[in-house]
Amino acid sequence: MNLLLKEIRHNPLLWLLVFVPAVFAGVSLVPERHTLLFLLSVLAIVPLAALLSHATESVAAKTGDSVGGLLNATLGNLTELVIALTALAAGEYMLVKASVAGAIVTNTLFMLGASFLIGGIKHHVQEFNRAGARLQAGLLFLATIALLIPSAVAEVDSVGSAAFTQSLSVGLSVLLIAAYGLGLVFTLKTHREEFASAEKDEGHEAPWPIGLALATLAGVTVVVALVSEIFVESVQGASAELGMTPAFVGFIVVALVGAAAEMASAFSGAWKNRLDLSVGIALGSAAQIALFVAPVLVLLSYVLGPTPMNLQFWPGAVVMMLFATMTAFLVTNSGRSAWFVGVLVIMVYLVFAMTLYMLPPRVQ
Amino acid sequence: MNLLLKEIRHNPLLWLLVFVPAVFAGVSLVPERHTLLFLLSVLAIVPLAALLSHATESVAAKTGDSVGGLLNATLGNLTELVIALTALAAGEYMLVKASVAGAIVTNTLFMLGASFLIGGIKHHVQEFNRAGARLQAGLLFLATIALLIPSAVAEVDSVGSAAFTQSLSVGLSVLLIAAYGLGLVFTLKTHREEFASAEKDEGHEAPWPIGLALATLAGVTVVVALVSEIFVESVQGASAELGMTPAFVGFIVVALVGAAAEMASAFSGAWKNRLDLSVGIALGSAAQIALFVAPVLVLLSYVLGPTPMNLQFWPGAVVMMLFATMTAFLVTNSGRSAWFVGVLVIMVYLVFAMTLYMLPPRVQ
Amino acid sequence: MNLLLKEIRHNPLLWLLVFVPAVFAGVSLVPERHTLLFLLSVLAIVPLAALLSHATESVAAKTGDSVGGLLNATLGNLTELVIALTALAAGEYMLVKASVAGAIVTNTLFMLGASFLIGGIKHHVQEFNRAGARLQAGLLFLATIALLIPSAVAEVDSVGSAAFTQSLSVGLSVLLIAAYGLGLVFTLKTHREEFASAEKDEGHEAPWPIGLALATLAGVTVVVALVSEIFVESVQGASAELGMTPAFVGFIVVALVGAAAEMASAFSGAWKNRLDLSVGIALGSAAQIALFVAPVLVLLSYVLGPTPMNLQFWPGAVVMMLFATMTAFLVTNSGRSAWFVGVLVIMVYLVFAMTLYMLPPRVQ
Repeated sequence: MNLLLKEIRHNPLLWLLVFVPAVFAGVSLVPERHTLLFLLSVLAIVPLAALLSHATESVAAKTGDSVGGLLNATLGNLTELVIALTALAAGEYMLVKASVAGAIVTNTLFMLGASFLIGGIKHHVQEFNRAGARLQAGLLFLATIALLIPSAVAEVDSVGSAAFTQSLSVGLSVLLIAAYGLGLVFTLKTHREEFASAEKDEGHEAPWPIGLALATLAGVTVVVALVSEIFVESVQGASAELGMTPAFVGFIVVALVGAAAEMASAFSGAWKNRLDLSVGIALGSAAQIALFVAPVLVLLSYVLGPTPMNLQFWPGAVVMMLFATMTAFLVTNSGRSAWFVGVLVIMVYLVFAMTLYMLPPRVQ
Repeated sequence: MNLLLKEIRHNPLLWLLVFVPAVFAGVSLVPERHTLLFLLSVLAIVPLAALLSHATESVAAKTGDSVGGLLNATLGNLTELVIALTALAAGEYMLVKASVAGAIVTNTLFMLGASFLIGGIKHHVQEFNRAGARLQAGLLFLATIALLIPSAVAEVDSVGSAAFTQSLSVGLSVLLIAAYGLGLVFTLKTHREEFASAEKDEGHEAPWPIGLALATLAGVTVVVALVSEIFVESVQGASAELGMTPAFVGFIVVALVGAAAEMASAFSGAWKNRLDLSVGIALGSAAQIALFVAPVLVLLSYVLGPTPMNLQFWPGAVVMMLFATMTAFLVTNSGRSAWFVGVLVIMVYLVFAMTLYMLPPRVQ
Repeated sequence: MNLLLKEIRHNPLLWLLVFVPAVFAGVSLVPERHTLLFLLSVLAIVPLAALLSHATESVAAKTGDSVGGLLNATLGNLTELVIALTALAAGEYMLVKASVAGAIVTNTLFMLGASFLIGGIKHHVQEFNRAGARLQAGLLFLATIALLIPSAVAEVDSVGSAAFTQSLSVGLSVLLIAAYGLGLVFTLKTHREEFASAEKDEGHEAPWPIGLALATLAGVTVVVALVSEIFVESVQGASAELGMTPAFVGFIVVALVGAAAEMASAFSGAWKNRLDLSVGIALGSAAQIALFVAPVLVLLSYVLGPTPMNLQFWPGAVVMMLFATMTAFLVTNSGRSAWFVGVLVIMVYLVFAMTLYMLPPRVQ
């Protein structure tokens, strides 16, 4: 417990934990102030995500490389998963899908681009391991194709058959999880030496003892779930009051909030000229959302949701995911980076964010 | 003739030749058993394709490098061409187009992916000549753009002008054949040294004498044409009885049957760590279908078909061809491969196959 | 003045200046002969563009590297800008957009492809600096995404909200100009050594004295504007009389005319095995149109045009810009070239040109 308090004192991000009691106080005192509750829950989720991330890494560090890698690979986006599950249980499928698509786009464009920019401000030219970037970009490309197919077929042909889209979504989910699992075997078992530099040192802070880590993991997950519930309930009212489209909130705001902790690691890696780490976090996290979180949500919607959820996205989101993946492939292909590469990638992100911000609210 | 029998005894694939008389017997005894005739004709085409392939290579080996290369490049997909011509003469344009698109997708994804996987199971990391892969991927990309344009323009603008689509298709066919011809000049004449390793040793079995080879070429082509007729007649009834959509049969089943002989060569090359050979067969075959077989079918439809055929594909098929080409480009770009690259490529194929299998039958 | 006359005697392209008085004579004598005026104005613009190009380079050579680079980067496509501004003032937004899209496609495909082909005829294999090509291809890719988004969102969702498209276009224009400006800082200031070989020697002819250069710049710009007015007025009548669609004229004819002077430099560079120069001119010019000329036209339409212009293109033009950019990326990725690479790229251009030529006139 002392260690946890020391960590909190040490890490300014964790001072935001004060917003956790604030959001619970808010929901019982002023349940109608949607914008206030929305902002408080956003501010509360950021430090909780940082705690979850550190706890996962600590458990991973204690359980050995393979099990640890597996843990990181399944729980690394636990915050996004919990938020999405809460929205799923509330039947807010539009928000679930927007946050999945937004997490993919934000990780591949904003997190990657800002890492290149931050690293490029300090270092003239940076190099990184292309093998890891290529694998993640390949996985992302596969996932984008899989996520694009139901929308493409349904749009183009006006099939309209909900049964077809639903069973296709389940089949694609199984394929994606299988590909993700085989990818873990590849990076953690058979070809781990190829990905060495991208993996080492990720948990650069001292790991917690296993008991504290497991307790934090369990406890914080519950708190995140409770805060997420307030967040999901307030998001629609708040977006209306703030004049933001629900598409913008789901795509941009939720994605930035959920990934705040990983961004801190990625940016610090870039600044220290360890761009392998930044690229690995950004693309790895995007691939995990696309190949693990999204299909798990589809499968869990049969248990948790009011009706089954499918993988048919808003066509604009599909276009954005596709171009985000292509951008990530193009800029990581050479294994070199400079500040302007970061600017280019962030510009693509700004194009998308601006479009979503200006979109008439009817279209989501 | 002895040599032919020796070859048959030597090669287990050729034992399937027993199904050639079986399918002719079947069509006169039980002409209404569509599924049986479909299966028998599929089983009969596989060994006939292997014979055609060996005969073409034998003639090529005897006629010197340039003429031989030209022969391989024009007759290498003779089976697919004969099946498609039979369907063309019967006016089954949906089947013709599905089998063309399916052959491109199956060669670039399944044949390439399975080669990477099979090679990767035996060898930790494999390398191959990027020059050949780049040229073929470039040709494929050009062809995909050409095949995509009529569908894109017709779809997006609801032009509806059949005359426009038809004359555009003829013009594009001439361009594609010209590009294919210039590509042969490039690989066989002016820059042959760049493609050396991909070409050598392809006919690793002892070639037949020219007389036997030419006779086999002529005779087997006639038999393939006769069996194809039974195949084309039975495919619709069979697909209905087997619960498969016509799109799935044309795209997946016909493509796998027609390419069985080449797959045997590609997979054996990958196992022997001669991945140049596998990549060359897979992408070369796909490029040949796209730049030679497809436009030749359009031009021949003026002579053989009930009405002229155009190059306007079902939009879903265009999306699949485009992503198959992009996948092939991305994975061959580095010139290195491991088992998981094969898994990724096969997964993209499975995404497409699953979509086609589940597609409501109305949409083809 | 003597120097100007010497230049004219020296450069056969400038003999076409005789068509400048001819076009002014034509417009007062036979104002109804649209086709004649169209051809005369086309022939008059080619040498004027060459003069503008030489004057810009001369001013740039006198003002030092950074200011000179900036001048080249902003005035390098002055001819295209003046033609487009004339069409803008006349409210011919269809022609403005077609000429912008056409300039991007013509520079990336025809100028690049013909450079590869011309260089490849003389030299077996040519190499060029990949850093410059990658940067320009990256900028082009960003611009294509930005130009594609308004069309994609408007098409797919039938938003129909003109206000949304208009404000999005203004926002995207500001982003594109910012990206272009930062790109200049990158290539001219912080990382100029990476782009060294692509820049040196561009002004290989002796530069004019600054006074002559500035006077030519000002005077010829006025003449180009006057000729452009005749060109814009005659283009519709002429295209009807010549049986060409307006889309073909805007996309192909205007683009080839406006870029004639740059093509002469690019082709001569390729022939002298200085492919860096050719690739730099072709992709740099395309990037300049996409990231500077197009957004400047949108912003100036508020001042000069009858109504504001947006960035929503005809979907076929978007598809062509996207594939042109992808083709440029794929073929410049390896940093090597041979004649067949040029053939492939020109073939893609011919596919587009043929489609536009055959397009029924209603669809533009």
